[in-house]
Parts: sequence; structure tokens; C-alpha cells
Amino acid sequence: MSKQILILAGDGIGPEIMSAAERVLGVVNEKFNLGLSWEHGLLGGCAIDAHGVPLPDVTLKAAKKADAVLLGAVGGPKWDTIERSIRPERGLLKIRSELNLFANLRPAILYPQLADASSLKPEIVAGLDILIVRELTGGIYFGQPRGIRTLENGEKQGYNTDVYSESEIKRIAKVAFDMAGLRGGKVCSVDKANVLEVTELWKQTVTELAASEYPNIQLSHMYVDNAAMQLVRAPKQFDVIVTGNLFGDILSDEAAMLTGSIGMLPSASLDENGKGMYEPCHGSAPDIAGKNIANPLATILSVAMMLRYTFREETAAKAIEDAVGKVLDQGLRTGDIMSDGMTQVGTQAMGEAVVNAL
Amino acid sequence: MSKQILILAGDGIGPEIMSAAERVLGVVNEKFNLGLSWEHGLLGGCAIDAHGVPLPDVTLKAAKKADAVLLGAVGGPKWDTIERSIRPERGLLKIRSELNLFANLRPAILYPQLADASSLKPEIVAGLDILIVRELTGGIYFGQPRGIRTLENGEKQGYNTDVYSESEIKRIAKVAFDMAGLRGGKVCSVDKANVLEVTELWKQTVTELAASEYPNIQLSHMYVDNAAMQLVRAPKQFDVIVTGNLFGDILSDEAAMLTGSIGMLPSASLDENGKGMYEPCHGSAPDIAGKNIANPLATILSVAMMLRYTFREETAAKAIEDAVGKVLDQGLRTGDIMSDGMTQVGTQAMGEAVVNAL
Ligand SMILES: CC(C)[C@H](C(=O)O)[C@@H](O)C(=O)O
Ligand SMILES: CC(C)[C@H](C(=O)O)[C@@H](O)C(=O)O
Repeated sequence: MSKQILILAGDGIGPEIMSAAERVLGVVNEKFNLGLSWEHGLLGGCAIDAHGVPLPDVTLKAAKKADAVLLGAVGGPKWDTIERSIRPERGLLKIRSELNLFANLRPAILYPQLADASSLKPEIVAGLDILIVRELTGGIYFGQPRGIRTLENGEKQGYNTDVYSESEIKRIAKVAFDMAGLRGGKVCSVDKANVLEVTELWKQTVTELAASEYPNIQLSHMYVDNAAMQLVRAPKQFDVIVTGNLFGDILSDEAAMLTGSIGMLPSASLDENGKGMYEPCHGSAPDIAGKNIANPLATILSVAMMLRYTFREETAAKAIEDAVGKVLDQGLRTGDIMSDGMTQVGTQAMGEAVVNAL
Repeated sequence: MSKQILILAGDGIGPEIMSAAERVLGVVNEKFNLGLSWEHGLLGGCAIDAHGVPLPDVTLKAAKKADAVLLGAVGGPKWDTIERSIRPERGLLKIRSELNLFANLRPAILYPQLADASSLKPEIVAGLDILIVRELTGGIYFGQPRGIRTLENGEKQGYNTDVYSESEIKRIAKVAFDMAGLRGGKVCSVDKANVLEVTELWKQTVTELAASEYPNIQLSHMYVDNAAMQLVRAPKQFDVIVTGNLFGDILSDEAAMLTGSIGMLPSASLDENGKGMYEPCHGSAPDIAGKNIANPLATILSVAMMLRYTFREETAAKAIEDAVGKVLDQGLRTGDIMSDGMTQVGTQAMGEAVVNAL
């Protein structure tokens, strides 16, 4: 049985955080006898520099062959002014789409040790544990027609199409319901059905699926504007949130920031067969790249998600998560989550601390 | 010179909060000799009950004739299951569009007296004063084609079109720049230009306009996902935010909730000639309707906005705002903003207190 991982460190802080995560992966692989092997590839700005495109064929081929992809972060000012169609983000969107990674899981968890880091009052966020399930290969991100055209009167007009079919909605809703079944049993589906037909169909489809196949899941619906409010007002009311690509992009970032420690949050993007791409929620942070100060824990926790969802190695996944908990208990902090009385450490030292805690 | 107002109290708590606001309007009208007159009309659920449609012709005609519209709130569970095309929200969207109210101003202000009400830490939100300028008659709310169709394989597909032309973008950006010129001088334009062409044109157009006509405004750009995060992390970094209809819907509600007192926030929707519709940011709150406990201050402050933007009566507008400040100083609170040691009052009593403070 193949257990092949493709590692794409990417740009900015990508290489440093990935090197720390790779150390952890190596140790866990031996300790739990996982039989995993991995190779490296280029995605994003570094791929543009080497091959002229953000997702080179060789990377795509390797990604298709692999069972899982571990990604650092892509992009940076260096590539911000190049032609739109070959920007780093395009590589990210293309790999998601080519690998059919339609289910994006973004947990927003507040580690008790980091409760102070939140900009919200402790009583509002203590114990926060939300899972955002975002559809990732459809909606307005990929809808056609799209573009910028010139109207008869000479002015330009930009346009995009938001589009979802029942089958696309069902398969992502299923993921959300299944996940909720393993957690708090509640799903909140977020739409703007009072204005947009595409989300009216979303709401209907989710409702029907719940009624016919998930009688034990408690399903609620919320308009996206209200969801953006409720996340600020009382985020702990949520268990699993399921929504489309664009709303998921916005709400998952808002939810992540509620924790105040986005440097701690991993994510998974899965296809229908458990193949997945795993990456931290944060970006490539070009301003602190190469300084050995970035927080590698989100990438390390992405390794844990990979072991859980693609390789079904729950024990090893849990071991990594526990080890991360331990280093936090020890008071070790990278700069982004530093607070009074804690010990500030660099990227690699944080990685080593996790290795030791294992 | 005509100074005619159309009052649409609407549904739920609409009539009670409007009756308090109307008392204030009456007093200010006399005190400052404004020469305003007003009549009443139906919009939303109450219009459906009386005329079968949420925006009856007679209301639309009166609204077109009036110089300003003062709106309570529309909608409620009673009309949630009726045919989509005549739901209360449709009336709201139609009146915005028919009156060309393209510029939606949504202030998110944290009153010092209410700092505790926020779910964010005091140091994060104290002194918060953001103005969100939302485009209100274009974008995906009104774009064609739209609908739900059946595909060849028999499954349904929902679709909507997000669309903006240069002239639509310019006119809303101008409003934002002009407003910023009267405030902190900073505009943050929010887009998703890394993915959506429609917002790529948005970003370009705003950038060009700033360079050619507003050299003194400090313009920045932010992706919508990042904006949703930054509002939680450090909201005071913003002065004026300008964005499209959908992002504006989401971000303005998020920003309003940062204050913890959405019952305090008014809004204005303006056309190109200063005609406007004024309404509280909150909804019709059917659960507390008819109990004389709703907070009328957002509606009262909407009257102030109306005097400022449509009737150019700054002194009278300021007098209302100061009176609201005074009743807060006196410790008077409706239930939604109640806290220890304050005096809880009902809707009408709060209105009377503002009248007395005038
Ligand atoms: C970089 C960008 C295209 C991407 C997205 O919008 O999906 C990012 O914001 C994310 O959420 O992974
Ligand atoms: C009721 C709804 C159609 C409306 C909108 O989305 O514009 C509301 O949320 C608002 O923001 O005024």
C-alpha cells in the first residue's frame, strides 16, 4: 500500500515552518512505524521563479500520484505585479481544483494556554472549538462566465458567476454532517438565501439531505451577515458551520482570528477518497521570512490532520497534538503568541520542543 | 422648497421605535424651525398584508416624491414562507434600487458609555469609529443572469452574477473619499482581487480615482477575508471602508457587532442628489415586538443622519446626537444595552428622555 506524501514548502516562511514540521513527521513516522515516505516539489512563487508558472506540470503530476500533499504557504510581494494568470494564488486554486479537493476543513480552536491572545473577552471565547467546512472547488471562485469586458459606451465591466449544483452541495453537506456526528452533532448552514438564488438552492438541498439522511444532526440556517455578527457576539454557539467557497473564505478567517492565534491553526482540503492537501491557515508572511521566528505549530498540526484524515493514523495524530499541548504547557512561545512570563523561542527550537515532547 | 419625509414604520418593533423617533422628529422640527412635514406608508410585511406586495405602487410613488424616507424595520416569521418574489426583503431591495440609493453609509461607533457591551476587550474597541460605505444597488444583489435551472442530467443548479461597471465603482468610491475627507482621511477598499475579476476592476478603478482626484486621501486595499480578520484583531486601524454590496453586507454587520450595541447604530442610503433612506442597522426583532422594550435610539439617530445628509441641518442633527449622549450619561438603558447600576427603561420612555434632553 502506497503512503506517499508530496511536500510543497512554498514561499516566505514556508521553507522554515516546513522544515520544523518535517522533523516532526520524520520522528512520528519512525516512532509509530507509519511507513510514510515523501518527496519535495515547487508551488507558488518559487515555482514561478523556476518554471515560469505557479503550478508546474511536474508538481501537479507528483501531487496526483501522492496520497497527501503537505503545503507551507505561497505568495509574496515579489510576485504581486506579475501577470494575473500566473500569480502564486492561481497555483493554489488550480491544485485544489485539479485534485478535486472540494472539502476544506478549517478548525478554529482556542488553546486554553493561549486564551489571552484573543481580542475577545475570555468568557466569550474560552473553550472555543468550531469546525468550518468550506466548499473549495466550486462557487464564484470557479464559475463561468467571468472576466472584464468593455461595454458599448466604452466603459469596462467586471463580472463573475456564483454557481452550485445540487450534487456539489450534497457532497460538501455530507462531509459537514459526518464531521458533526463525530463532534457536537450540530451543523449551521450559512447562506444568503433571502437574496441569492444560488444559496436558496444551497439551503433547500442541505435541508432535504438532513431530513432524509441525517435525522440525528441538529441543522440550523443562518444568513451570512448574521453569521459574521454571531461569530463576534457568541462564537461558542457553533459546532460545525458549512458554507460555500466565498462565504467560507471570509467566515473561516474571521473565526480563526477569534482565537487570536492563527499561527496555531491547521487546515485540510479533502477529495472524495480521503486524499488531501494539508496546510496552515496563515499566509506566507514575507515580512518575517528567513528570520527563524515564524510559528511552525500550525504546519505541525497540519501533519497531525494528515495522519488522521488521509492515513487514518489516529494514535500518531493524537500524539502530535498532545505534544503541541505539552510545549504550550511548558511555556514555550513563538513571537506571535508570546505573552508575559513565557519563554520566547524560534521556529526550529519550537519544532525541536515538539519532537522532544513526543 | 419641499421638505417632505415618508415614514415607513414596517414590521415587528418597527412601529414602536418609529413612534419614539417621530416624537423626537416633531420636537426638533419645531425647536429648530425646520419646516419638515411627513406622511406614512407601508413597506414589508404590513404592505403584503394590506396590498399583497411588499412595496406597493402607492408607497413607491410617495417615496419618489419625498425628499427622504425614514424606515423602521421589515420582515418577520409571518412572511417567511410566502412566495419568494413577494417577501418583505424584496420590498427593501426594490425601494433601494428604484430610488437609486447606491451609497449605504453604516457607521460602527462605540459609545464610551456602552464600552462594556462589546464582546471584545475594551482596549481593542474603546473609541471605535468606523464608517462602512457599501455599494447598495449593484453587484451580485442585482446582477443578471440569475436563477435556478435544471441541468440536462436532471439536477438543479443555482446561479447569480456579480457585476460592476467602472462608473458604478467610481461613484461609490467618490462618496467614500469625500466622507474620509471629513473624517480621518483614510479609505480602505475591500476586494477579492486575487480571485474575482469583478473586484479586480474594482481595485483598479478605485486606485485610479484616488490618484487622479483624491491625492490627499490615504488609500489602502485589503482582501475581504483579511478584512474580516482585521476587524476582529484591530478594528481601530480603519477609518472609512468602501466595498461592494455583498462584502459590505457582511463586513458592516460584523463591524456593527464589534460595538456590542447594534441597537444604537443608524444607517443612511443615499442617491446622487442627497435624497436618502434612513434606517436603524438592526432588524425587526419580531420576538420582542409590541412589548415596549426595543431600543429606539438607532432610529432616533437615523433621524439625525437624515437631517445632516438630506436636509443639511447640521445643528439639529448634532442636537439629537448630543441628546442621545446625555440620556446615556444619565444612565438610562433599554434592555439590550442594560448593565449593572443603570436604569432600565422602555422604548417610549427612552424616546421621551431624548425629547427632554433636547
Ligand atoms: C490565496 C487565496 C486564493 C485563498 C482563497 O481565497 O481561497 C486564501 O485566502 C485561502 O483561504 O486559502
Ligand atoms: C434584508 C437583506 C436583504 C438586507 C441586505 O442584505 O442588504 C439586510 O441584510 C441589510 O443589510 O440591509
